Amino acid sequence: MEQEVEEKLWEIVEESEIALFITNAEGYPRVRPMTILAYEEEGGVWFATSRSSRKVEEIARNAKATACFLNLEGGAYAQVFGEAELVEDPELKKEFWEEEWSDYWEGPDDPDYVLLYLRGARAEYYLVDEDELWVVEF
Amino acid sequence: MEQEVEEKLWEIVEESEIALFITNAEGYPRVRPMTILAYEEEGGVWFATSRSSRKVEEIARNAKATACFLNLEGGAYAQVFGEAELVEDPELKKEFWEEEWSDYWEGPDDPDYVLLYLRGARAEYYLVDEDELWVVEF
Repeated sequence: MEQEVEEKLWEIVEESEIALFITNAEGYPRVRPMTILAYEEEGGVWFATSRSSRKVEEIARNAKATACFLNLEGGAYAQVFGEAELVEDPELKKEFWEEEWSDYWEGPDDPDYVLLYLRGARAEYYLVDEDELWVVEF
Repeated sequence: MEQEVEEKLWEIVEESEIALFITNAEGYPRVRPMTILAYEEEGGVWFATSRSSRKVEEIARNAKATACFLNLEGGAYAQVFGEAELVEDPELKKEFWEEEWSDYWEGPDDPDYVLLYLRGARAEYYLVDEDELWVVEF
């Protein structure tokens, strides 16, 4: 059962039309759409970001953040609650690098290009038609 | 100029496909889609909710919340940061009441039906194509 709940979580993530990354900004939640690079079934979500971005400042002050995945046409949305951290491992940066990012960064070694990892503590998803909320603890 | 910025904010709100209401839940931002009932140009946003909902508990603990409006097809999103409060004024409840809510509540006098008002302190919106962020102080 637990495994099915986890599988459904990542299914919603995969099928989501929109991913949002939400920080605490001076006490208020602040949202921005982001592209998810990968997820780990143990509860991690990977993004790429610019070191000079506001979200990097915000997680330095308060690492608690949420990744939210909207699949409203599919009647579901999911969110992963956790602690966000920057990851600058050169190998990983290379692995995740997409050629289309060349508009923003010089290449995978650009020091302004950093990975953002949300280490999930828990997650939940809501199925609209069933009016059911499911919780996953990582 | 300032007036144009405010007008653009409410235009994005009006044209948004998805509205989200985001609370602080044990330190983590928590999202749910909601239907906006109305907005006030001075910086207020109205929603309807159930008194027994989690968000009501969450704003009782921490009133700071965000309403986010996604109009990604239109290349924009906006968010209003503020303090959320419950409003139980019978006249207002009647004014906002929608017949289709009869599935959830007995009628406008149902004590579980309450209005949720987000009193905006500031707002911002982002225009994707222009890569521009605009800020509104209320």
